[in-house]
Amino acid sequence: MLPCRAMSSRAGRIALDAMGGDHGAAAAVAAAAEVSRTTTIDIALCGVPEAIARELAKHEHVAARIEIVAASQVIGMDEKPREAIAAKPDASLCVATKLLRDGEAAALVSAGSTGALVLAASEWVEKIRGIERAGLAAVHPTPQRGRNRDRFALLLDVGATVHCRPKDLLFFAYMGHAYASRISRVERPTIGLLNMGTEETKGGETLVAAHRLLRADPRLNFIGNIEGNDIPLGKADVVVCEGLVGNVALKMAEGVSELFKNLGRWAFKQSLGWKLGLMLLSSGLRRIKDLTDYSEYGGAPLLGFAQPILKAHGRSGPRAIANAIKVAAKAARDGVCGEIAMSVAAFEAEDRQHALVGE
Amino acid sequence: MLPCRAMSSRAGRIALDAMGGDHGAAAAVAAAAEVSRTTTIDIALCGVPEAIARELAKHEHVAARIEIVAASQVIGMDEKPREAIAAKPDASLCVATKLLRDGEAAALVSAGSTGALVLAASEWVEKIRGIERAGLAAVHPTPQRGRNRDRFALLLDVGATVHCRPKDLLFFAYMGHAYASRISRVERPTIGLLNMGTEETKGGETLVAAHRLLRADPRLNFIGNIEGNDIPLGKADVVVCEGLVGNVALKMAEGVSELFKNLGRWAFKQSLGWKLGLMLLSSGLRRIKDLTDYSEYGGAPLLGFAQPILKAHGRSGPRAIANAIKVAAKAARDGVCGEIAMSVAAFEAEDRQHALVGE
Repeated sequence: MLPCRAMSSRAGRIALDAMGGDHGAAAAVAAAAEVSRTTTIDIALCGVPEAIARELAKHEHVAARIEIVAASQVIGMDEKPREAIAAKPDASLCVATKLLRDGEAAALVSAGSTGALVLAASEWVEKIRGIERAGLAAVHPTPQRGRNRDRFALLLDVGATVHCRPKDLLFFAYMGHAYASRISRVERPTIGLLNMGTEETKGGETLVAAHRLLRADPRLNFIGNIEGNDIPLGKADVVVCEGLVGNVALKMAEGVSELFKNLGRWAFKQSLGWKLGLMLLSSGLRRIKDLTDYSEYGGAPLLGFAQPILKAHGRSGPRAIANAIKVAAKAARDGVCGEIAMSVAAFEAEDRQHALVGE
Repeated sequence: MLPCRAMSSRAGRIALDAMGGDHGAAAAVAAAAEVSRTTTIDIALCGVPEAIARELAKHEHVAARIEIVAASQVIGMDEKPREAIAAKPDASLCVATKLLRDGEAAALVSAGSTGALVLAASEWVEKIRGIERAGLAAVHPTPQRGRNRDRFALLLDVGATVHCRPKDLLFFAYMGHAYASRISRVERPTIGLLNMGTEETKGGETLVAAHRLLRADPRLNFIGNIEGNDIPLGKADVVVCEGLVGNVALKMAEGVSELFKNLGRWAFKQSLGWKLGLMLLSSGLRRIKDLTDYSEYGGAPLLGFAQPILKAHGRSGPRAIANAIKVAAKAARDGVCGEIAMSVAAFEAEDRQHALVGE
C-alpha cells in the first residue's frame, strides 16, 4: 500500500517553476515555504538545487511537503520562447512541466515567460480531447457585482492564439465557465463575446458563427456580444475573444491605468494643494491599488489542458505566487479541467448527432 | 466669370449634417453660426429647413456664408445603418454626402451615426484610386511628446473594417501619416503597427506581411510593432490596426477611464477627507478632463475618400462641431486626401514594377 499512497501524494502536488519570474528563486521559494506552513498542499520546487536550498534556509517550512526537483537551466523572461525551449530541455520550466506529463504533479505554476509556458505546456501536457487551441486567461478589475464575489472579469484568450475558429471560441467559453463557477464560485457565470457591436451580425464570419454556437448552447449563460467598454464596467463574468483582440485590449487597459498613475505622480510634484489633496485621498487610492493589484488574483490560468496551469505575473512577489499555488491546487481538487472536458465531449457528441441527422 | 466663381466658392464649402448627433440641429446650427462669424468658411447646412431656420434665428451669423440645403428625413443614432440609408434617401446625412459627389462641397462633417456615415460615404463619395477600404480614425489622449504638439495619437481603423489585407494596413499608415503631418503638423509622424508582441514574426500572416510592407516603405517613419499599452503612453503618433482590434482597444480604454471617473464620484461621497482631497485636486482633474475631452479634437476623420470626411462625436456640442468644421476645411485646403492618393499611386506603381521585374 505505501508506494501507492506515496504516488498519490506526489500526483496531487503542485509543480512550481522555482526560477521563473522577475524575482526568481527568492519569491518562488518564499511562496512555497509559506504555503507549506499554512496549507496541506505538497509542492515540487523545480530549479537549481543550490539556489533553492539557499532560499529555503531563510524560511520556516514543512519539509515533508516540499521536494526539490533538480533543473540545471533557467529560461529568462526575454528569451525567444521557441529557441529557449529547444536549447534548454533541463530548464526549470521544462522540468516542472514534465512532472505533469509523468503523473508526478497535478498542476503547474510559473511566473516565467508566458510564451515559453504556453509552448512547454503544448509540448508536454495532454490537451483535453477535442480542444485544439489552449486559451490564456487574464483577469480585469471591475466594480463589485452582486452575483460575483470576485471583483474581476475573466478574459480569454489573451495571447495563446491569434485568430480562432468559431468552435475554439465556444471552447474558450466552456473554459471560462468552468473556471468562474469552480474557482470564483459564480453561479451560472455570464459569458460575453467581445465584438465591435452588440448586433449578432457584427464582427465578420468567425464572430457571427461563434455567436450562433454560444447562443445555442444550453450549458452557457450567454449574454450576447459585448464591446470593449463593457469589460471594465463588469458586464460579463467571462469575456471570450480571439487572442490578438484580447491581448491588445488587455494591454490597452494597462496603459490607460499607467497613464492615470503617471498623472497622479506628476500632480504630486506640482503644487502643495495637489500634494495635500492626494494625501487626503491616499486611503481611497490604496483601495484602487488593491482592486487593480494582480497579486490578489493568484495568476491567470492557461486552460485547455488536462491539468491546471497557472501563469503568475512576471513581477509576482511571494504573496502572488502563493495565491497562484493555492488556486492551482483548488483547480486540481475541484475538477476544473474535468468539467471543461465534459462540456467539450457533450458538444462534440451533439455535433456528430446533428451531422448524422443532417445526412 | 461670376457663375464660375460662385461654383468654386460652393465647391470649397463644408457640407454639415445639421440633424445628426445627440443634440441635433441645436448644436450643429450653433456651430455653423459661430464658424461663419469667426472664419471665412462657407457651410451648407443640410437638414429640415424649418428646424434649421428656427435655430439660426437664435444666433448671430454671416448669412452669406451659410446656405440651407433641404433634407426632409433624419437618421437616428440607433437605427440600423443599412436599412436607414435605404429607407431614407432624403435624410440630412444622405443629402450632405451627395453634395460631395456633385462637387457642391469640399468636405463633410456629421455627428450622426458612425455606421450610417461610413455607408453613405461608401455609396456616394469617390474612393481614392487603389484604396478598397476606408479607415475610420480615432484619437487617444497621450502624454505630451516633444515632436507632436497635439496630445493625442491617431488610431485607425477603429471600425470601418473587420479584418484587412496587408495592403489595407499600409494604406491606413498613409492616411494617418498624411493626417498627422498636415493637420497635427507633426514632422515625419511615427507609425506603429498594433500587435500582440514587438517581434516582427508576431500576430499571424496578415500582420507579418503588413509589417514587411511598412518597414520597406521609405515614405513612412515606421517604428515597428507596438502593443496596446504603448498607445496611451504615446509611443507612436499613428497606430495602424484592423478595425475589430482598433474598435475593441479604443472602447476598452473608454471603459477604463469611465471606471476611474466612477471611482472618483464614489470617493467624493465617502468621507469628508476624500471630498476635500478631490476639491484640492480639482484644477488637476480639470486638466485631465481637458486632455481626454473629445470636443478639443474636432472629430475623427474617415479616410480613404477623395474628399475629407469628419465624424464628430455623437455627444458633440457646438464647440466640438465647430472644431470639426474647421478641421474639415483645413484638411480640404491642405490636401490631406491628395497626399494619400499620391502615396497609394506611388506604391501601386512600384508594386507593378516589382511584379514586372519578378517576371
